Amino acid sequence: MDWLDSIAWDANGLVPVIAQEVHSGDVLMFAWMNREALQLTAERGQAVYFSRSRQRLWHKGEESGHFQQVHGIRIDCDADVVLLSVTQLGHDPGIACHTGRHSCFFQVLKDGAWTTTEPVLQDPATIYKR
Amino acid sequence: MDWLDSIAWDANGLVPVIAQEVHSGDVLMFAWMNREALQLTAERGQAVYFSRSRQRLWHKGEESGHFQQVHGIRIDCDADVVLLSVTQLGHDPGIACHTGRHSCFFQVLKDGAWTTTEPVLQDPATIYKR
Repeated sequence: MDWLDSIAWDANGLVPVIAQEVHSGDVLMFAWMNREALQLTAERGQAVYFSRSRQRLWHKGEESGHFQQVHGIRIDCDADVVLLSVTQLGHDPGIACHTGRHSCFFQVLKDGAWTTTEPVLQDPATIYKR
Repeated sequence: MDWLDSIAWDANGLVPVIAQEVHSGDVLMFAWMNREALQLTAERGQAVYFSRSRQRLWHKGEESGHFQQVHGIRIDCDADVVLLSVTQLGHDPGIACHTGRHSCFFQVLKDGAWTTTEPVLQDPATIYKR
């Protein structure tokens, strides 16, 4: 059986994906893949997601240059969530978030309000110029 | 504005949640919360999810004793994913998975097949006896 057949794709043919930075353990982002995206991710060793807003494959870094090198692909006990081990390329430290921050999870709940905890490492205007 | 109003709840009133172990950085599991679950999680400092299969609140550990102490609650740039920092209670090392393993992400893609990489720390039959 094809390893892709083991995935419990949702009603839209998608699976949620968590990208975790391999050297730091930081959770960088969360996105979705369809079957083709997951297959391409495994073949290329670079993360290819499926953009739900644009309804097309999204090779992470295609506009920003911030590609994700994939070291490992895991699934959970129900085979309905994927966990990627990645190196975030293109900037040091890595920028995974479209806001120019290291991780997308830069807002933490503090005293009943969301507080931004991570600095912008690069102005998004200069990231997406290319 | 209530901090819960900032969440971009999906069409079913849910938000995906990643639980990450605070001391190891391991991603333990992935689940869902509704508004009440997230509010209770913040109030109690213990993870309360919403079970989609059972369509009810699910206080993680209510059957297994494997509660999750919550140290931090983060949201991503789009405010549509939650990241919890947790200590997995009830066993050492922590057991987050209903299969008796540390993490739900115990299957890794290797040579085109899913391979189990983590041992069962406790027989689920003895976990769910209580």
